[in-house]
Amino acid sequence: MKQTLRDLAEKLGCRLLGDTSITVTSVSSLHSATSHSLVFVEDAQYLDAALRSPAAAVIAGEFAASATASKPILISAQPRLTFARAAKLLRHPDRNPAIHPAAIVPPSAEIGKNVSIGPGAILGERVKLGHETTIGAGSVIGDDAVIGNHCRIDPNVTVYPGTTLGNRVVVQAGAVLGSEGFGYVRDSQTGRYEQSPQIGRLVIEDDVEIGANSTLDRGALDETRIRRGSKIDNLVHIAHNVQIGHDVIIAAQTGLSGSVTVEDNVVMGGQVGIGDHARIESGAMLGGQCGILPKKILRGKGVVFWGTPARPVREYLKELAFVTRSVKQNR
Amino acid sequence: MKQTLRDLAEKLGCRLLGDTSITVTSVSSLHSATSHSLVFVEDAQYLDAALRSPAAAVIAGEFAASATASKPILISAQPRLTFARAAKLLRHPDRNPAIHPAAIVPPSAEIGKNVSIGPGAILGERVKLGHETTIGAGSVIGDDAVIGNHCRIDPNVTVYPGTTLGNRVVVQAGAVLGSEGFGYVRDSQTGRYEQSPQIGRLVIEDDVEIGANSTLDRGALDETRIRRGSKIDNLVHIAHNVQIGHDVIIAAQTGLSGSVTVEDNVVMGGQVGIGDHARIESGAMLGGQCGILPKKILRGKGVVFWGTPARPVREYLKELAFVTRSVKQNR
Amino acid sequence: MKQTLRDLAEKLGCRLLGDTSITVTSVSSLHSATSHSLVFVEDAQYLDAALRSPAAAVIAGEFAASATASKPILISAQPRLTFARAAKLLRHPDRNPAIHPAAIVPPSAEIGKNVSIGPGAILGERVKLGHETTIGAGSVIGDDAVIGNHCRIDPNVTVYPGTTLGNRVVVQAGAVLGSEGFGYVRDSQTGRYEQSPQIGRLVIEDDVEIGANSTLDRGALDETRIRRGSKIDNLVHIAHNVQIGHDVIIAAQTGLSGSVTVEDNVVMGGQVGIGDHARIESGAMLGGQCGILPKKILRGKGVVFWGTPARPVREYLKELAFVTRSVKQNR
Repeated sequence: MKQTLRDLAEKLGCRLLGDTSITVTSVSSLHSATSHSLVFVEDAQYLDAALRSPAAAVIAGEFAASATASKPILISAQPRLTFARAAKLLRHPDRNPAIHPAAIVPPSAEIGKNVSIGPGAILGERVKLGHETTIGAGSVIGDDAVIGNHCRIDPNVTVYPGTTLGNRVVVQAGAVLGSEGFGYVRDSQTGRYEQSPQIGRLVIEDDVEIGANSTLDRGALDETRIRRGSKIDNLVHIAHNVQIGHDVIIAAQTGLSGSVTVEDNVVMGGQVGIGDHARIESGAMLGGQCGILPKKILRGKGVVFWGTPARPVREYLKELAFVTRSVKQNR
Repeated sequence: MKQTLRDLAEKLGCRLLGDTSITVTSVSSLHSATSHSLVFVEDAQYLDAALRSPAAAVIAGEFAASATASKPILISAQPRLTFARAAKLLRHPDRNPAIHPAAIVPPSAEIGKNVSIGPGAILGERVKLGHETTIGAGSVIGDDAVIGNHCRIDPNVTVYPGTTLGNRVVVQAGAVLGSEGFGYVRDSQTGRYEQSPQIGRLVIEDDVEIGANSTLDRGALDETRIRRGSKIDNLVHIAHNVQIGHDVIIAAQTGLSGSVTVEDNVVMGGQVGIGDHARIESGAMLGGQCGILPKKILRGKGVVFWGTPARPVREYLKELAFVTRSVKQNR
Repeated sequence: MKQTLRDLAEKLGCRLLGDTSITVTSVSSLHSATSHSLVFVEDAQYLDAALRSPAAAVIAGEFAASATASKPILISAQPRLTFARAAKLLRHPDRNPAIHPAAIVPPSAEIGKNVSIGPGAILGERVKLGHETTIGAGSVIGDDAVIGNHCRIDPNVTVYPGTTLGNRVVVQAGAVLGSEGFGYVRDSQTGRYEQSPQIGRLVIEDDVEIGANSTLDRGALDETRIRRGSKIDNLVHIAHNVQIGHDVIIAAQTGLSGSVTVEDNVVMGGQVGIGDHARIESGAMLGGQCGILPKKILRGKGVVFWGTPARPVREYLKELAFVTRSVKQNR
């Protein structure tokens, strides 16, 4: 969506140096810059390259304020963040709020304003959808599910009955929300397994984003809850009764077992595994592939943990170095 | 579904102490107990808390028989199992056996009694569905697939042609049954890969349960088979030609490579990886994230294995302790 | 599809010994051979078993040329490859090129010849489908996606808008192509995460095959690209900006982080994890579950790497042996 730099700078709260009437239509990398695109630089050493690129204008830090610039510069204290926001402002508004005739929406559903429901999407009884929310083609929203305002549910998602989503929640294709957890009781007489009740709920708060083909189980008796602002990548598994705090980052293919608690601001790499009932305390960072034992409490704001069982990365690296050195000495 | 304690106790085969006319409508945790819910205690030390909770009644072990109880108690030799069964008896029967007009069911399909087929579900030619089976919205059942009685196929599942499911099989949303295995032959002249034939079958026996977004490949030439009573969590990968025994437990994100054999009663944690043609013998237990090499035979009923390559957990822990100690001594 | 050995041998470029008029209808394993099936042997020691099986004929190496054979033999320099190709020639042509009335195909879509579109499949605006391509039931193909000739998209696949697939691409059920990558910027003032732009593309070249429920993200600003002939197993995660070369093999549940480069002919086992911006150079082999650190460059044609962080397998095994030995000596 075409915008003048003047308008953009105002919306982004940036100082604008240079020609304010120039228009841009998109953001881009330096590599794919065009005469209508906006690029960004966080580091003074790349400013020159940005200025030499075909880009229409550059978002940069304070370091660029004194430059003799060949093109307009938007000065921002957080250039990468400003770039992200510019991208949103420039995005083509491709939403076409309409309920496709090939969607199934029962009379008992409550649908907000400007909702878009794609072909083949299926809503259960008494589903509630907030304003400006989009349901992708082929998605199935179970009975009594509640989805807030400005949510985006991509195609082929499954939301089990009774699941609750807040506002501005994004769920990418193929994700499954509210499935039954993996809990069984073994009959000591027959040796056979029978399912423990998996009749709780899944609650997803505002601003949570969930990647493609991830699976989030409902609580067994009570609830699984993902708190405001947490972001979950593709193919992540969240088991029953898990509690995830605010602004938690969980990279792809990580798995959280039943009743795990993750406090606010934790960051997890990919393929991390967390055993049941473990607790990851606020601000801890888990390196890719690390493993946390059941019931373990991991504490350390800003501490990076690695390995299985996970320990502070400095210790882990010393252990690796010791083994490597020993093997060399034994040659 | 409202039931009197008298009726429940009879169906559950429990001894009932106290007022038999009280009615309950659901099971619950102690934390969310209401005056119409049933809770359970396995351990005498929690009996008091259960009796003090708002719950209508308590399922407990023999230890509770002599208690001066403020509310009715159902005495069971296996309280957790009885609780699970009570949950099933109390579950609201939300099945509404009907074929939705927006489902696609070709005339060649054979449909049992009281079958439920959701909107957007698609059955291929000659599909057979047993009695009381449910096919979720948006699921695709390929030609010649056979699904037994009392099965529950949740939404957006894909069953490839020719796949066979026994009775009481549960498949959660997004799972894929009978996909083609990952087998290629490299042409030594061109260096290009060509697919090996993946034309076998997938057979799933009675009482198997499969989690959301798991993938189970068909056999290459013969069959992949999951035997009676095995339970598979979310995002699990089962490759071509795998043979899984009875009552095997496989936690989330575990992957079994081609031609792996898992004998009866094996228990696997999450994110376990098993190399092709390995054999896990009866009753072995594999800790989370452990890795088994191709062709390895892992033997040991009740032995817990851990690490990559997997070894008995006691050995693995000694190794970890040795390294940690050595690093400390070298400081 | 019934064929005479004479015809098959000609198409396969094999020398045929024995009765050329015999017909076969399928390939099989030795174990499931019938009087109409074709089996293969790569190793002289199994030739006898093949000749004693009920199979109609045997594909074998040059070693079988001098055998006094009880049944026809097709001599091939690459018996396994010839067997794979025979399977394709014998496969029943079950494609029924038609657009199902319950598919949604907008007038703006360009559809090639002999295309098959299953029930419940949904095509967006301006989608292009090449000749002889199949779109499975329930799959959703986003606006402006381009899919080449002879592709096979299985059921319940999601292809995001603007994604491009070459010719002969196979995508199994539930896979997601072109989802948004996992890139966020943290606002240093509020501590909240905002999405970095994920507006690039996903390009999949000819002869790529993708397993069930795998997820491939689009580029952030530019493109994610999978080059000609690469094969990807089930539940694999490919993040934004990843570049994969020709003829790369990626086994199940492996995950590649953002901006990873994988050069030609790399082979990866299952559950491998690769950190962002790492580069795996041509011909390297990564053992199952190994982990590569962010920005790492892994070099070594034909070298097998293992462990986390990945090192040459010989080194890794020495390290394992050292630890095991040390623990034993310390007893």
